[in-house]
Amino acid sequence: MKEVNLICTKCNKKFPIDKVHFRCDICNEPLELEEIKEGRIRKDNVFNQTIIERYADFFPFLDIDKDLSLGEGFTGLVESNKIAREIGIENLYFKNETQNPTWSFKDRGTIAGIQHAVKLGYKTIGTVSTGNMASSVAAYGAKANLKTYIFVYKDIADEKLNPIAIYNPRLIKVDGDYGKLYLESFKIGEENNIYFINSDVPFRIEGYKTIAFEICEQLDFDIPDYIVVPTSAGGDIRGIEKGFREFKNCGLIDKTPKIICAQASGCSPIYTAYKEKSDTVIKYENPSTIAHAIGNPTPPSGNQVLRMINWNRGTCVAVSDEEIIEAQGMLARTGIFGQPASAVPLAAVKKLREEDYIKKEERAVCIVTSTGLKYTAAFKKHNLRFEECNIKDLSKIVK
Amino acid sequence: MKEVNLICTKCNKKFPIDKVHFRCDICNEPLELEEIKEGRIRKDNVFNQTIIERYADFFPFLDIDKDLSLGEGFTGLVESNKIAREIGIENLYFKNETQNPTWSFKDRGTIAGIQHAVKLGYKTIGTVSTGNMASSVAAYGAKANLKTYIFVYKDIADEKLNPIAIYNPRLIKVDGDYGKLYLESFKIGEENNIYFINSDVPFRIEGYKTIAFEICEQLDFDIPDYIVVPTSAGGDIRGIEKGFREFKNCGLIDKTPKIICAQASGCSPIYTAYKEKSDTVIKYENPSTIAHAIGNPTPPSGNQVLRMINWNRGTCVAVSDEEIIEAQGMLARTGIFGQPASAVPLAAVKKLREEDYIKKEERAVCIVTSTGLKYTAAFKKHNLRFEECNIKDLSKIVK
Repeated sequence: MKEVNLICTKCNKKFPIDKVHFRCDICNEPLELEEIKEGRIRKDNVFNQTIIERYADFFPFLDIDKDLSLGEGFTGLVESNKIAREIGIENLYFKNETQNPTWSFKDRGTIAGIQHAVKLGYKTIGTVSTGNMASSVAAYGAKANLKTYIFVYKDIADEKLNPIAIYNPRLIKVDGDYGKLYLESFKIGEENNIYFINSDVPFRIEGYKTIAFEICEQLDFDIPDYIVVPTSAGGDIRGIEKGFREFKNCGLIDKTPKIICAQASGCSPIYTAYKEKSDTVIKYENPSTIAHAIGNPTPPSGNQVLRMINWNRGTCVAVSDEEIIEAQGMLARTGIFGQPASAVPLAAVKKLREEDYIKKEERAVCIVTSTGLKYTAAFKKHNLRFEECNIKDLSKIVK
Repeated sequence: MKEVNLICTKCNKKFPIDKVHFRCDICNEPLELEEIKEGRIRKDNVFNQTIIERYADFFPFLDIDKDLSLGEGFTGLVESNKIAREIGIENLYFKNETQNPTWSFKDRGTIAGIQHAVKLGYKTIGTVSTGNMASSVAAYGAKANLKTYIFVYKDIADEKLNPIAIYNPRLIKVDGDYGKLYLESFKIGEENNIYFINSDVPFRIEGYKTIAFEICEQLDFDIPDYIVVPTSAGGDIRGIEKGFREFKNCGLIDKTPKIICAQASGCSPIYTAYKEKSDTVIKYENPSTIAHAIGNPTPPSGNQVLRMINWNRGTCVAVSDEEIIEAQGMLARTGIFGQPASAVPLAAVKKLREEDYIKKEERAVCIVTSTGLKYTAAFKKHNLRFEECNIKDLSKIVK
């Protein structure tokens, strides 16, 4: 691996990357890889490239194991003039992360994490997740032929459990506090030589940078005003922001967009701290939202998201379940079906436009994080319509 | 549009493309666009291209309406050394069509069909489908702001109905014979100015050519021995074969692969006709298979698939539900979760390898047509495992 360090996001203490280090032993804050200052895009044949290869200058790997890839990334960026008009904004784009191999953005973080795990000689990986990340790590573990531990919470619905179990990991439903389980997993990992690719571990964050890189390429390096990210643990939003920052360092873009941290009102610990001008996120009591996928009451990167929003000069916003469902329907009526959490950015843009925070001449990109097929209970919240008839009456009905 | 004709796949009668023509008025056989003899790939920035733009020389459109796109195509090609070793074959690849905007290959055909419909001035589109194609046409109709009719059969499960309804089309459950409904829809379309982008209409077939084009690019134009396609109506397999043929015409590749038509034994009308050396596919009575998505007992392109397999020198094969489920599990254990129909090619390769039709030094590509999330009843057929414990016992369990 290249000579890069991990660095504490709070106190700047350095850690080497040739061992696993997830959090600072002094601050208990997340670590991240030192910022890249020089790099270019490898504009080879994209049909023969993985995302880690195309943006290799922005990763610390000297060689890349192509066999670990499931074809993650290179997802679509879809512009919707229809919704832009409805909301009254110049340009509105949706980065469709449902086009990943396990149909969520998590695959980008998993591939970076598993590259690191394999380089360090690990034979076992794992994660703690309520759904999307569990499927992702189970799938990549299967591809890499690694033993894979997946810890999920006790009350997980079968609908979420089965699409994890199908990849055949060692899947354990754990009764206990989810925030504690996150930290407990690192301890178990250390004791048993398991690399836990959890929600905000440094290499997972690195993988998410590729969302920013692709948006730059897709918009021909003409950077939008806002990137709106559904935020739970805080990993995705941190990675995306870091990606833009590094492209700017390298002269590939001349400004960075404002980053919007979008949460569900029913579980909005980061938004709450931001509003209260606190620098510390505290546990969100009695969380309840239809956007389950972003329902983490104790976000491990919460404080770092607050620090990042502060220097980036973006903002935090929270939207109600009602607004989320409305946005989910609106998004589907432009051809993109995301899960409730994935509709949070659109609901946020609508709200911020109404408040005139976002101006009508501005441009925003919403991250659609995962497929609507993964959370079918949301169907009941929509007024879905169909008719019935006999084939002999069909012609009359259509007329 | 360019000066190209539609041509009957059986009698060669010509039809203009400036009107909708779906089947030959003499033979009642499907039409297709005349073969392209000259063309090149537009190797512009792929991040700013749709598939129709990249392969524009192979489509009859003079201008392409980019706004109709949802970011279809450019899906991954994943090699699995693990399964290749298990089966005893040199190279085995999976073209992961679950990475399309509505998570199936259908989106490629829909984009080509809707481009044509909009060019001809249609304000209304439609389709007849049991699932994947219905979602696809509903999504693209939503994106294009066109009125969209979706006819599904009477007994469709809610699990399939909801992911169509979410895009808000005019969705009608029709009681009657599915094969008759296919033909009835064209009549209704003619009377009411609706462009039905059904399973094997000529422009849908054109869209499927892009699967072949991408495989060529992804394998650096080193063509594999076999392409294995789950086959129902016969649209996808016809498009893929035509794609390779046209790339060969244009000197982009020096040979074409053998095309394998893979069906489920429980509904295998094309395989049955092929085995009986008949040139006519007849209705498959009492169809019953877990691979619902390819359960069409009266494939409208069945006869043309027989003619094509004959000149291409590929073959037809049928696999049991047991073999399909086994293959679905095997595929998931390499990180790709397709619906049962999408596991049919892998089951077919395994069978053809056992019969020594496919040799151990050969290379095959399986088309994984759609996501496993769309048909959850299949989970019950797998022995899915999980454990349960309290957080305080977790460390002991892992040891």
